[in-house]
Amino acid sequence: MQQTPLTIVDIFERAERMYGDHQIVTRGPAASTYTYADWARRTRQLATALDELGVSEDARVGTFCWNHHQHLELYYAIPCSGRVMHTLNIRLFPEQIAYIIDHAGDEVIFVDRSLLPLLLPVLDQVTSPQKIVVIDDGSGPEVIDNERFFDYEQLIEGRDPAEFDVQDENQAAAMCYTSGTTGNPKGVVYSHRSTWLHAMGMTSTMTIAVSNRDRALVIVPMFHACAWGMPYAAPFCGAELVFPASDMTPAGIAQTIQDEKITIAMGVPTIWQGIAPLLDDYDFSTLREVTAGGSAVPRSLIKLYRDKTGMMIVQGWGMTETSPVCTIARPELRDLDKSDDEKLDIAATAGTIVGGVQARVMDMDSGEQAPWDNETTGELQVKGPWIAREYYKPENPGALSTEDGWMRTGDIAAISPAGTIRIVDRTKDLVKSGGEWISSVDIENILMAHPDVREAAVIGIAHPKWTERPLATVVLADGVEPTEEKKAEIADFLRPQIAKWWMPDAIEFIDEVPKTSVGKFSKKDLRDKYADYELPDAAR
Amino acid sequence: MQQTPLTIVDIFERAERMYGDHQIVTRGPAASTYTYADWARRTRQLATALDELGVSEDARVGTFCWNHHQHLELYYAIPCSGRVMHTLNIRLFPEQIAYIIDHAGDEVIFVDRSLLPLLLPVLDQVTSPQKIVVIDDGSGPEVIDNERFFDYEQLIEGRDPAEFDVQDENQAAAMCYTSGTTGNPKGVVYSHRSTWLHAMGMTSTMTIAVSNRDRALVIVPMFHACAWGMPYAAPFCGAELVFPASDMTPAGIAQTIQDEKITIAMGVPTIWQGIAPLLDDYDFSTLREVTAGGSAVPRSLIKLYRDKTGMMIVQGWGMTETSPVCTIARPELRDLDKSDDEKLDIAATAGTIVGGVQARVMDMDSGEQAPWDNETTGELQVKGPWIAREYYKPENPGALSTEDGWMRTGDIAAISPAGTIRIVDRTKDLVKSGGEWISSVDIENILMAHPDVREAAVIGIAHPKWTERPLATVVLADGVEPTEEKKAEIADFLRPQIAKWWMPDAIEFIDEVPKTSVGKFSKKDLRDKYADYELPDAAR
Repeated sequence: MQQTPLTIVDIFERAERMYGDHQIVTRGPAASTYTYADWARRTRQLATALDELGVSEDARVGTFCWNHHQHLELYYAIPCSGRVMHTLNIRLFPEQIAYIIDHAGDEVIFVDRSLLPLLLPVLDQVTSPQKIVVIDDGSGPEVIDNERFFDYEQLIEGRDPAEFDVQDENQAAAMCYTSGTTGNPKGVVYSHRSTWLHAMGMTSTMTIAVSNRDRALVIVPMFHACAWGMPYAAPFCGAELVFPASDMTPAGIAQTIQDEKITIAMGVPTIWQGIAPLLDDYDFSTLREVTAGGSAVPRSLIKLYRDKTGMMIVQGWGMTETSPVCTIARPELRDLDKSDDEKLDIAATAGTIVGGVQARVMDMDSGEQAPWDNETTGELQVKGPWIAREYYKPENPGALSTEDGWMRTGDIAAISPAGTIRIVDRTKDLVKSGGEWISSVDIENILMAHPDVREAAVIGIAHPKWTERPLATVVLADGVEPTEEKKAEIADFLRPQIAKWWMPDAIEFIDEVPKTSVGKFSKKDLRDKYADYELPDAAR
Repeated sequence: MQQTPLTIVDIFERAERMYGDHQIVTRGPAASTYTYADWARRTRQLATALDELGVSEDARVGTFCWNHHQHLELYYAIPCSGRVMHTLNIRLFPEQIAYIIDHAGDEVIFVDRSLLPLLLPVLDQVTSPQKIVVIDDGSGPEVIDNERFFDYEQLIEGRDPAEFDVQDENQAAAMCYTSGTTGNPKGVVYSHRSTWLHAMGMTSTMTIAVSNRDRALVIVPMFHACAWGMPYAAPFCGAELVFPASDMTPAGIAQTIQDEKITIAMGVPTIWQGIAPLLDDYDFSTLREVTAGGSAVPRSLIKLYRDKTGMMIVQGWGMTETSPVCTIARPELRDLDKSDDEKLDIAATAGTIVGGVQARVMDMDSGEQAPWDNETTGELQVKGPWIAREYYKPENPGALSTEDGWMRTGDIAAISPAGTIRIVDRTKDLVKSGGEWISSVDIENILMAHPDVREAAVIGIAHPKWTERPLATVVLADGVEPTEEKKAEIADFLRPQIAKWWMPDAIEFIDEVPKTSVGKFSKKDLRDKYADYELPDAAR
């Protein structure tokens, strides 16, 4: 067989040649509609501009941007010219961003004008990047006029198109830092091979089967695990792409879905929760599927969408370290005759392992591989051509992988005989009571099905007798009074659905569940807040 | 990223773990229904049996079989244990089969009992295989009772299951000889990597998107380019598999489609032509798609299926040397608003280049790359991770590839701006008239749209003035009288649809178009038959 390398260049040249007439749309204040042909031409010019800007041949190049077509140009010009794209998370604290920029050693950073106020304070703290290229996304401060700052459009204008040639498929293509709950952020490096394979996988029926009949809305940030691979999968198969830019309000996204006749959209559950009250106000009829990931989607939300639109929210599980797609929850051949309720149950799991990925659960006590019985839980470990082996310049070399080469996810899960994964908890989010584990996620999902509960987060509180006991923190829906009666009503709702010893010792109403920079519940912050919390005496 | 190899073991273990309850069905005299779990257990036992039979660790192992579940066991046990599966084409001449067995150096051959009469005469002519394992497929002669012959079921019964471990994804996995029109048959070797990637590709929306909701009927012989990859793609994604075994009659296949609730079926156009008269007699409502390849599907046949069943015949183009899928003909996003007639036109092309494959057309005169204008024709050349670089022990080393690493297909084609390939002819099947090329395929397709024409084949006849002039040989439909009036009527039907100088100088009625062993028109045999043919004087 030919030794044709699996590279992003292959994806790029395919889109350029075959889908030149397909559209790429950017919404928001600097709205734009152009074609893959326009994109390909500008991408080649951008690569030449990088050369002429004096960026090293294998440099890390940072991006600090919303989702838009210029970001897509960077997604290809940087790796196709042999460099490494480093997407910076705009929602991190300045200290974290500074740490990441210097840790990666970014030579240049591409930044949206509207995001300059976030980046400028960081630039005083870093030593790495000498050059800043500003993309005018329609708002923000005037660009500083000095030799360190460049305008994106001026930079690429009139440049000759670059020729791309990447021969080593294992060459680094992109990197993304994950904001761990402990220690400094950790960098994950994607290769051309892993990106190609993951993109091919995204067009497979084993994941979301994106196709050239789709118009895909990329809501998940492009600084978050390469937007789950859609910016590579869509050009590969010829799907049209729509980017929201900075307009991430529920109404803005609903309007985009309606205006742009979106067929598939990807975003975290919070986004779909936000849009839920608008389902009757906009036309969602072109949508064939909504893909959610990043945290578990409550069954009640999936049911709401199904009842209102007839469409399932399809969730997947993955991490920055896994490119990210490892599972997808979709009824299979064996499920087609099941009831609507059973299909909902399937959609509410973390999903079934996708082709290319292997998974196993290691019993936390015995250290042995757990059977696939949907019951035995342990640490979920994964393997595959788009799974990270090691972090970039790791603080603890070897800590990410087991000795036999599987990646440790830190999630606690069970696997069903059919390969469906049930995430029980993060290792550190389990509540350990009397030597047994209580799943905070299970309790949260039940609580969030109560009509008066908007969000719920359960944490373990230190307890002299039981080691830990669960505390449920609850955000009430708008207009609901936070009374003791309401607490009792919610407890009564929960009680028949879980084991007696799982019942939280207390329920506390809060205004908002603290979130991480990527919108996940931050149990760490919640635990800090309740560090000195006293459980009611009755529980002792 | 982890360096997880792309191997058939990965596909096997996925099917074994996740689709244990899915069915594999064999039809015919030794009908059987079992599960992927059964298949996996027997496959592991078969691998142990190969060891105990004394088959070398990297041996070539021949198969001489119909499509059935035992053949699927061989498809995995041989490569997953590190050996190379060599599928022998049962339709070749004995001398060709003997040549191929010795050229590959097969150590053992697995043969169906019903096919022993074809293989036994060959065994006298070969030096390679010492051992013959007979699979009882329900008919055929008694098995010879001597130490050279083994019974398949006795061989695997009670064996321990083997553990599989293939670490080098570039290791050879399977081989298949292509019966060229010149010289000896040529061996193509597939690697684990090429097989994995092609199988993943088959589950992609860029090809046929086979999924775990499908029940796939594999009509295309498993000795023909690994049955177009379906025996690897289906276990990968969990599609159920149905094999016709030796029951390849149109009525038998139609009955299988109805009984087994087939959703997708793959076979050469001749099969679909044969089934066409039965479309009203059987229930084809579960079929979502029929895939055809191997030779061009006449537009009239696609239209007939569409009109009767509402379903398109989706055709692809490929060769044994290309694993085989390189193109697929399916309306895309840009085609969805087109008329039914325009969609038929799309379905009647050779299809659009699939993800992973690159194609180009080289102008036969200038040697330059031709533009993608759907007009300029030249030799079609392809590149990609499942395209052969070289034949096995080639007679003419280097002849298959160009100096810059593209595979020469020998087909003459044009490519449209959207990457759709129009096969004009085989290099040697073009008719060269007055320095210009006439496409025999185009003329044949028009002739076959005439209601009285069942098959048509056009060849070039030597001509003193024009070098060559076309002769149309025509097989009439049942009951149509072969009269001079009919010839004139067919010529009148053809004339307004082609250029004047393309008009065949004569039409001859024949009983049957000679076919190659894989069911393609054998222009070579036709040319031999008409070697001394005299064109009518009027044409000179």
